[in-house]
Amino acid sequence: MTTHDSTPTEQDKEALLEDLVDANHILFNEGVLDAFGHVSIRHPDDPERFLLARNMAPGLVTGGDILTFELDGTPVDADGRKVYLERFIHGEIYRARPDVMAVVHSHSPSVVPFSAVKSAPLRPMCHMSGFLGEGAPIFEIREAAGHATDLLIRDCGLGASLADSLGDHNVVLMRGHGATVTAPTLKQVVYRAIYVEVNARLQADALRLGPVDYLTADEASSAMETTEGQVERPWQLWKQRARQARTASTS
Amino acid sequence: MTTHDSTPTEQDKEALLEDLVDANHILFNEGVLDAFGHVSIRHPDDPERFLLARNMAPGLVTGGDILTFELDGTPVDADGRKVYLERFIHGEIYRARPDVMAVVHSHSPSVVPFSAVKSAPLRPMCHMSGFLGEGAPIFEIREAAGHATDLLIRDCGLGASLADSLGDHNVVLMRGHGATVTAPTLKQVVYRAIYVEVNARLQADALRLGPVDYLTADEASSAMETTEGQVERPWQLWKQRARQARTASTS
Amino acid sequence: MTTHDSTPTEQDKEALLEDLVDANHILFNEGVLDAFGHVSIRHPDDPERFLLARNMAPGLVTGGDILTFELDGTPVDADGRKVYLERFIHGEIYRARPDVMAVVHSHSPSVVPFSAVKSAPLRPMCHMSGFLGEGAPIFEIREAAGHATDLLIRDCGLGASLADSLGDHNVVLMRGHGATVTAPTLKQVVYRAIYVEVNARLQADALRLGPVDYLTADEASSAMETTEGQVERPWQLWKQRARQARTASTS
Amino acid sequence: MTTHDSTPTEQDKEALLEDLVDANHILFNEGVLDAFGHVSIRHPDDPERFLLARNMAPGLVTGGDILTFELDGTPVDADGRKVYLERFIHGEIYRARPDVMAVVHSHSPSVVPFSAVKSAPLRPMCHMSGFLGEGAPIFEIREAAGHATDLLIRDCGLGASLADSLGDHNVVLMRGHGATVTAPTLKQVVYRAIYVEVNARLQADALRLGPVDYLTADEASSAMETTEGQVERPWQLWKQRARQARTASTS
Repeated sequence: MTTHDSTPTEQDKEALLEDLVDANHILFNEGVLDAFGHVSIRHPDDPERFLLARNMAPGLVTGGDILTFELDGTPVDADGRKVYLERFIHGEIYRARPDVMAVVHSHSPSVVPFSAVKSAPLRPMCHMSGFLGEGAPIFEIREAAGHATDLLIRDCGLGASLADSLGDHNVVLMRGHGATVTAPTLKQVVYRAIYVEVNARLQADALRLGPVDYLTADEASSAMETTEGQVERPWQLWKQRARQARTASTS
Repeated sequence: MTTHDSTPTEQDKEALLEDLVDANHILFNEGVLDAFGHVSIRHPDDPERFLLARNMAPGLVTGGDILTFELDGTPVDADGRKVYLERFIHGEIYRARPDVMAVVHSHSPSVVPFSAVKSAPLRPMCHMSGFLGEGAPIFEIREAAGHATDLLIRDCGLGASLADSLGDHNVVLMRGHGATVTAPTLKQVVYRAIYVEVNARLQADALRLGPVDYLTADEASSAMETTEGQVERPWQLWKQRARQARTASTS
Repeated sequence: MTTHDSTPTEQDKEALLEDLVDANHILFNEGVLDAFGHVSIRHPDDPERFLLARNMAPGLVTGGDILTFELDGTPVDADGRKVYLERFIHGEIYRARPDVMAVVHSHSPSVVPFSAVKSAPLRPMCHMSGFLGEGAPIFEIREAAGHATDLLIRDCGLGASLADSLGDHNVVLMRGHGATVTAPTLKQVVYRAIYVEVNARLQADALRLGPVDYLTADEASSAMETTEGQVERPWQLWKQRARQARTASTS
Repeated sequence: MTTHDSTPTEQDKEALLEDLVDANHILFNEGVLDAFGHVSIRHPDDPERFLLARNMAPGLVTGGDILTFELDGTPVDADGRKVYLERFIHGEIYRARPDVMAVVHSHSPSVVPFSAVKSAPLRPMCHMSGFLGEGAPIFEIREAAGHATDLLIRDCGLGASLADSLGDHNVVLMRGHGATVTAPTLKQVVYRAIYVEVNARLQADALRLGPVDYLTADEASSAMETTEGQVERPWQLWKQRARQARTASTS
């Protein structure tokens, strides 16, 4: 039913939107997001736009809450609804990185300590987190905007600085704030956002035991290819778990 | 329907009372209070009084359990019901700090270690805990009352000493005991009581990784203003979660 | 209806038996016991006997599973039912310590590390754990029985050695094994078994921050008196929580 | 009804299959497996074969998902269904170790750090983990296959190398990956897979307190004999808990 092989059908797009709603619930249910943080996808019809919920707790997002944004953060169809202050994280990364199709911004609890300790870079501890490659850089907002900011990415300029720190990595930490995770698909970005938290916990535990044998760059690359080819398996588990939690909470 | 703009209506006061009951349940449900600890508000009609539950587990408090106290801890309407031994924490802070409208006293698990290690001051690790400013002081009861107390704030004198240690900070730690958190509104004090626990956990984890980059005083102040302007978002999430937990437990 | 004031009525004894069943469920539900560990009381009618469940998971104990034992560990009414291998812990402590009316033996997770690190004595960190006094001794089974035991208290001789290590303390750690906690009442022993776990977690966290200010001996004693006078409050909360968990699991 | 005393009856085999399904659910429910990892048994009729689920999340496995494999990893009755990439772990260990009747491969969270820190060998901390004997060796895949693998055991050669590292131990850690646990029965392998996680957490906590008194080799051996003779008690508890969780999730 597609007119071009590379064009998503209406069915594909509906499924993607449903996945984006599930992604919000999964990330909340797995403890990566709480009342704060957000997940977006690049618009399937227009690479110059992205889809992101209106300003609300991720655990409560429904299909009707997903808005379309220009890359500069301008909402297209908000119709007066409040938008996230930090939507510029998403827009500027989509602008700088054409390969990125999905973005998560979180304050996940094991990752924040690594954002504030520059002497302890986050590195891949195990095969599940090969996407960390040779490590995640830290974005220091003081270098871009001085010593008195509220640490938030509240405009395009700060978004562009963050994208600059990200470079061609998959993950960038944000000092005293959290992390932003990117991927070529929505399911992979959810996987990475969950496993960057897992890896941070494992690495913190390992560092207390002694010197750590991290994955080599080649191991990280090989492991990423294998494990992310299996991303459907944990996605189904997380989705089922998130839906159960929602059913339990509304029954 | 108000006669003066600054006077709360009966509706406002009913809503505030309902919020105080929810605050008890939220703080219990989020692990800040257990069978012990308490939360109060300054009386909306009389700044020389405050509202606090009778002596009971916070998770079980209902509207009928809220009592009115004089600032010296004398219950006004207890009608023979038992009151909290440490109500003097609340009264003396309301007396010393006219700007404080709500107080939480807790033994939250990540905070107690910081109360007992004077060489490791609690400081803001991330934008969510800007309210910690340049750090939280520790109240050492031995300085006020010698080496043989039961560590509790059991009279006005100890309450006044605690208020003195608090000074113009938002949080004061109590050695070998816990913390007391203050704020200009009830929702903010709940937010701060939850995030002082979060911050303590993040800081303990970070300190094990290496030297920590804390928020500057200006960052803390800017971040506090931004995040606490959004306090309604987590409040709604916590309230929903606490109500679900109560429904589950009584069905 | 009692013939002597100091003699418990039949009603008292039924209530105590019901409390012993609840104590099993509470200690399981709060994570102090799992499939292993046990809680006993001295027999209300005969100080030379004690009451303890038959060999089974504490979370499943009912009134019919409670057996009577002689102090030497001989079951009186087992009627062929299997008994706990380590019942000698209870009997020998009741023999050595006439003031002890209730005993818990557990492998609670934050306590075991302190049992295996002799250079880090467990000490009271906060007012809730005053019962730790000047610290808990460690029972080293190698001193009593050499280097090839299975670490278990499998006869009266080992039980007596353990009671000897306990001395007049309230808690004794057992190297590579766990802890045994004693108290003058059942509700207090449950309280102490839960708070020895809490204290171990707080102390381990505090030791990583820097030198710890422990409670003085006088503070511990004062705090114990105050907090254990309030033991009914957490007991009711724990009992309610354990009963809910059981209802959920059988509905 | 058996023709030879040593031959399992059809009833025995059905019970064993049901246990294998329960083992999948238990290991998932206790946090040892998540969407990944697997548990197998040697075929009760043919020591040259083993039984393992098809490629799927362990928490969802049913009797119909259990497949038969040759020791070289060839599926006998897959009928086109996908199989686990790392089935060679199981086959090669069954080949090298005739005494092994059950195998678990996991990425359990407290164990992974020990796999990546070669200076901190995993050793038995308490009587519950006597099966660790004098410690668990670490399999370094770089020694077998160089610095660019994806860390997975994807063929018989790597499986044989892993079995070689295991030697006559019960547990082998896999650097940057996880652990493989073996036992003479299915219930014991589940017990060991759960307690290797518990032991790793206890040991990490203890190492932060100071020098640790581990079990002597003789203590480990004695303790293993006693505790593993009681394996039915925790098995029943874990099974009940896993079945409740499944009921809750499908109601």
